[in-house]
Amino acid sequence: MSTTLSPLAPKTQPALPPIDGVRIATAAAGIKYKNRTDVMTMVFDAGASVAGVFTRSKCPSAPVDLCRANLAGGRARILVVNSGNANAFTGKKGKTTTTATAKAAAKAAGGKQSEVFLASTGVIGEPLDPAKFVHLLAAMAAEAKADAWADAGKAIMTTDTYPKYATATAKIGGVDVTINGIAKGAGMIAPDMATMLSFVATDAAIAAPALQALLAKTVKGTFNAVTVDSDMSTSDTLMLFATGKAARRGAAAIDKPGDGRLKEFARALDSVLSSLARQVVRDGEGARKEIAVTVTGAKSAASAKRIALSIANSPLVKTAVAGEDANWGRVVMAVGKAGEPADRDRLAIWFGDIRVAHKGERDLSYSEAATSAYMKGDEIAIRADIGLGKGKATVWTCDLTKDYVAINGDYRS
Amino acid sequence: MSTTLSPLAPKTQPALPPIDGVRIATAAAGIKYKNRTDVMTMVFDAGASVAGVFTRSKCPSAPVDLCRANLAGGRARILVVNSGNANAFTGKKGKTTTTATAKAAAKAAGGKQSEVFLASTGVIGEPLDPAKFVHLLAAMAAEAKADAWADAGKAIMTTDTYPKYATATAKIGGVDVTINGIAKGAGMIAPDMATMLSFVATDAAIAAPALQALLAKTVKGTFNAVTVDSDMSTSDTLMLFATGKAARRGAAAIDKPGDGRLKEFARALDSVLSSLARQVVRDGEGARKEIAVTVTGAKSAASAKRIALSIANSPLVKTAVAGEDANWGRVVMAVGKAGEPADRDRLAIWFGDIRVAHKGERDLSYSEAATSAYMKGDEIAIRADIGLGKGKATVWTCDLTKDYVAINGDYRS
Repeated sequence: MSTTLSPLAPKTQPALPPIDGVRIATAAAGIKYKNRTDVMTMVFDAGASVAGVFTRSKCPSAPVDLCRANLAGGRARILVVNSGNANAFTGKKGKTTTTATAKAAAKAAGGKQSEVFLASTGVIGEPLDPAKFVHLLAAMAAEAKADAWADAGKAIMTTDTYPKYATATAKIGGVDVTINGIAKGAGMIAPDMATMLSFVATDAAIAAPALQALLAKTVKGTFNAVTVDSDMSTSDTLMLFATGKAARRGAAAIDKPGDGRLKEFARALDSVLSSLARQVVRDGEGARKEIAVTVTGAKSAASAKRIALSIANSPLVKTAVAGEDANWGRVVMAVGKAGEPADRDRLAIWFGDIRVAHKGERDLSYSEAATSAYMKGDEIAIRADIGLGKGKATVWTCDLTKDYVAINGDYRS
Repeated sequence: MSTTLSPLAPKTQPALPPIDGVRIATAAAGIKYKNRTDVMTMVFDAGASVAGVFTRSKCPSAPVDLCRANLAGGRARILVVNSGNANAFTGKKGKTTTTATAKAAAKAAGGKQSEVFLASTGVIGEPLDPAKFVHLLAAMAAEAKADAWADAGKAIMTTDTYPKYATATAKIGGVDVTINGIAKGAGMIAPDMATMLSFVATDAAIAAPALQALLAKTVKGTFNAVTVDSDMSTSDTLMLFATGKAARRGAAAIDKPGDGRLKEFARALDSVLSSLARQVVRDGEGARKEIAVTVTGAKSAASAKRIALSIANSPLVKTAVAGEDANWGRVVMAVGKAGEPADRDRLAIWFGDIRVAHKGERDLSYSEAATSAYMKGDEIAIRADIGLGKGKATVWTCDLTKDYVAINGDYRS
């Protein structure tokens, strides 16, 4: 937890309502941090289904291995998350730790080990001693309560400067269901589940296969469309739990992926994930400005996304924004290096609503003064139209500042 | 030209001898910079052959377009390079400028327009007015002299803090030939001809097809194995000119690619390009440390290079080195995100000669004190052994410092 709040932090935080069938507890185990909570458990009533997407790193953390294995069962009774140590690249000890934790967690929640999900975030490569926190789990599960979402968001933070919350409601078959989500993440953020943890729960009754399909689809335009520094974590985890308790109030129970009754729920889930993902970017290490990069006119949507990511990950574009410089030449460079179809002489570029370049050269009518004024804002929109097709994509990132270097130059030592 | 010399600058500069058949002139045209030279011409006696490799950007600069077209002829009479303006993304005006420059240059050198080669470096997207310097070319060509290599290296600099020179000799059929090279480049450096210009000349007699084959092969392990910030320029140009004058002293004239008599020459060319490429990295914007990343044990050499580049381009690895932190967890992360075959539990990592991790976990015998002492040096070697095969590659990069952000946050404005 940084002491300096990001200037892009939300002005107000939403109050997350209880989700029927979910109880939460947090504890201060002193894994790395002092005087703060660093263990969080979410206990689910029997019958909750679960979906998850994870890092594509070839060197995933031990908790990611465990979650992937347990996801096959589709049922969840307890989630245990710790901050301060990622239990990643910890060899055989990593698995010893997850096994010990899963055993204690299953016992605490009264479920099976295959219904336990774990996540760890923090330093890589240091063994995580389960003895530091497994003895707390029984009491935490017993004392867990429904109205502790605010505490949950805080306990999972690492270098975050603020906790991330989002909530939404949707109707399924005429009955309101709720979706709550929390997230952490500030650096090592890139698509494909960037160094980021996020946990979302709903009281909707949606079976695991339908839940998984929904999550996999929604992640593309949300968490997989944000990047802070192009670095992908070994631990990225996004999980969605559905307790099914809304069925008691008459909500339809959905079994199949693609069920039309999920339409409104899908939109609400998108808004929750989108909010959390953008909160992560806005808390990017050292970030002073949020940058939305939109690419239009590409050969395909996939091509547009690759070009958008090339722009969003370019250190030269990101430092230019930090310097409040509408340096569209660097945007051209980033379009060119993406390797995707592009035609220099059809390219047009906007900063905000100001078209600074078109048909492959500077737009002679653009006002340098207006552009400079625009660049002083803290939300910068960059648009590049490739002029070749209808492919479109938006990704979000933040600027690259001296503070990013300072934060990451002495994080571990 | 920066006023602060890179701490990694060479302690001494080599004196480049004249190359028979090459004459050089520089001038101060005031294109952008004041009180310094910013135009350089290299005039070749009739009969010189030429080879070149260029940026793979989909939005190349107008001079790159011209060089690619003229390379087909295989003959060079004059090279004209300016700094201060890249003539990139300048629409139709870009071509008007290169045509006007080529016309004046051909006349000045007494050759054809198809024997003219151009390069421009500096700001992107601003029209380059040829009237600023074409009137100088006739006098420059007339007054060009053989012993002006030092001036040539200085005239092509932009944010470089020192000029880059390299020279070597080799025997072809028992006769000594000389290779001289200059380069510029400091930011926007990535493989595939990173924002970089380099011009190399030799008196060897090598026909264009053989020269091109040699250059294309040698660039892989030299200029295409360095990265400063993963950003690829619109203007990257590496050209090799062979005047053939050594034939008068009895050097064999080589016509075919793969001629065995080129063996020693190929080694000398590799040493010149390697020296220039590493000088570019050591002058990376804000660089305080040079980082050599070696990957061994990958499935293939290509896989090793992709993993090495993933490590070398990781902002988290680069900031850790800037902070003198042997943060091998971030190396694991970068191996994992490369998308190449890797097995967490076979991975071993070294900083210098110190093995910090093996078999997927921290090496318990490594000394934190010795590692900290090692990280204080200005040449850091990182090695990752993947443990899966025999693929090997080395790439060079530099650390990411606050100065990189400062330099690039207010370069244009």
